[in-house]
Amino acid sequence: MQVIPGSGALTPADPGILHGEGVFETLHLRPNGPWLLHEHLDRLTHSAALLELPLPPRAQLTALARRAADAWTAGEGALRLIVTPATHYATVSAVPATARRERREGITLITAQAGIAARPPWSLAAAKTISYAENLAAKRWARRQGADDILWLRTDGHALESPTASLVWLTGNTLCTVPAAETGILPGTTAAHLLSRAAELGLHGEERMITAAELAGTEAIWLASSLRGLAEARTLDGALRPASPWTARLLALLGFDGS
Amino acid sequence: MQVIPGSGALTPADPGILHGEGVFETLHLRPNGPWLLHEHLDRLTHSAALLELPLPPRAQLTALARRAADAWTAGEGALRLIVTPATHYATVSAVPATARRERREGITLITAQAGIAARPPWSLAAAKTISYAENLAAKRWARRQGADDILWLRTDGHALESPTASLVWLTGNTLCTVPAAETGILPGTTAAHLLSRAAELGLHGEERMITAAELAGTEAIWLASSLRGLAEARTLDGALRPASPWTARLLALLGFDGS
Repeated sequence: MQVIPGSGALTPADPGILHGEGVFETLHLRPNGPWLLHEHLDRLTHSAALLELPLPPRAQLTALARRAADAWTAGEGALRLIVTPATHYATVSAVPATARRERREGITLITAQAGIAARPPWSLAAAKTISYAENLAAKRWARRQGADDILWLRTDGHALESPTASLVWLTGNTLCTVPAAETGILPGTTAAHLLSRAAELGLHGEERMITAAELAGTEAIWLASSLRGLAEARTLDGALRPASPWTARLLALLGFDGS
Repeated sequence: MQVIPGSGALTPADPGILHGEGVFETLHLRPNGPWLLHEHLDRLTHSAALLELPLPPRAQLTALARRAADAWTAGEGALRLIVTPATHYATVSAVPATARRERREGITLITAQAGIAARPPWSLAAAKTISYAENLAAKRWARRQGADDILWLRTDGHALESPTASLVWLTGNTLCTVPAAETGILPGTTAAHLLSRAAELGLHGEERMITAAELAGTEAIWLASSLRGLAEARTLDGALRPASPWTARLLALLGFDGS
């Protein structure tokens, strides 16, 4: 991992380290630069506002992202932008082998009750903050159950999101994702971009609520995120699902070469 | 704030800063050393296990706490121990004026629905992690409502905890707190110590569940935490409550001089 400094420095007294008070974004680095940079900076701004965290000027963040992208010459990469009260910086690294494999081969996905009925007004679930330990704990738990990833369910049975990805599914010719505004989940950058371009493949994009039982009956299920792009659920709660011919088409639409 | 290094150093690639993967404890520094050091190190160990985070040997953490305590000579103080995958260190600083005032004068407390029905198996709510942004966001929200602090309610109406404190109340001659094991909340170090010594004042200590409505009818309500000790709720959801004669007695039992 390479670190590209922005300004300031990490200190032991930074609320970023003491209280996880910071925001981040992960972007897919491509030969032509960071993918969806504008959209990720928009979400970073939204996250910072929820956390009441001052951000450096946008031009400075854009320049940092470009500098970081220039520092990476080893094919597709992962760019992370981090902003805390004391510092901001970027890191670049290889896309994890797991992410590439899950994009290529799909995943085993389990649903699990998250115990959440509604998000309280102070919730930061709609912000991408560095208070991220529980997201990673949920993924570790899923792996202990023998699954690659987990889909969180609300107490009423509706699907919310995965710890590090958005839910996308195909039903008829409608490509769907979960409405972030209505549920308080993190608005998915990759999912939103995908839905905005669905028409190019003759599909219709729509935000909808869906239960785990309804999801099992859909044509295809994916987790959408910056580095994986789309990871198709090849099993849902243990039930095998046929590979969707749409996976390759949608990955190509998003500019992933599928290799 | 003074920083007392343990080992390692903060780096921009530390999962402590990237993902809030670290644990901490806050202790009250007294002339005779860190208060309840053994109990706080027990909880740190429990938190680290939930996070699957390796801890330095206990003797090393104890020595760090003692070194940090020796570095503080300005009266009562706040000692923080922080452990991330890359480093561990301590900080010492003054007890915030707010904490001293709330101990002395009490607080205005509001209850609010946290939207949580049950904690999922991967929950880190029982661990004191540095993924702490939402706790502080809840306190900011409470202040925007005109209150000093907030008490989280489960969807079934039972009280859980405050973002940075445990709930304690007196009913008859029973001093109560919320059972951590049953609810998945953080086990309160100060509250547990208080209940274990209740008999010295002729009281009985007990873990119980309580609803907000039932709480309003109790003799006294406090938030218990390391630096405040006990902060008595002088209003609950806007309703004035008479000052309890027990506040000074319990603070004295805990070794706070009340000044």
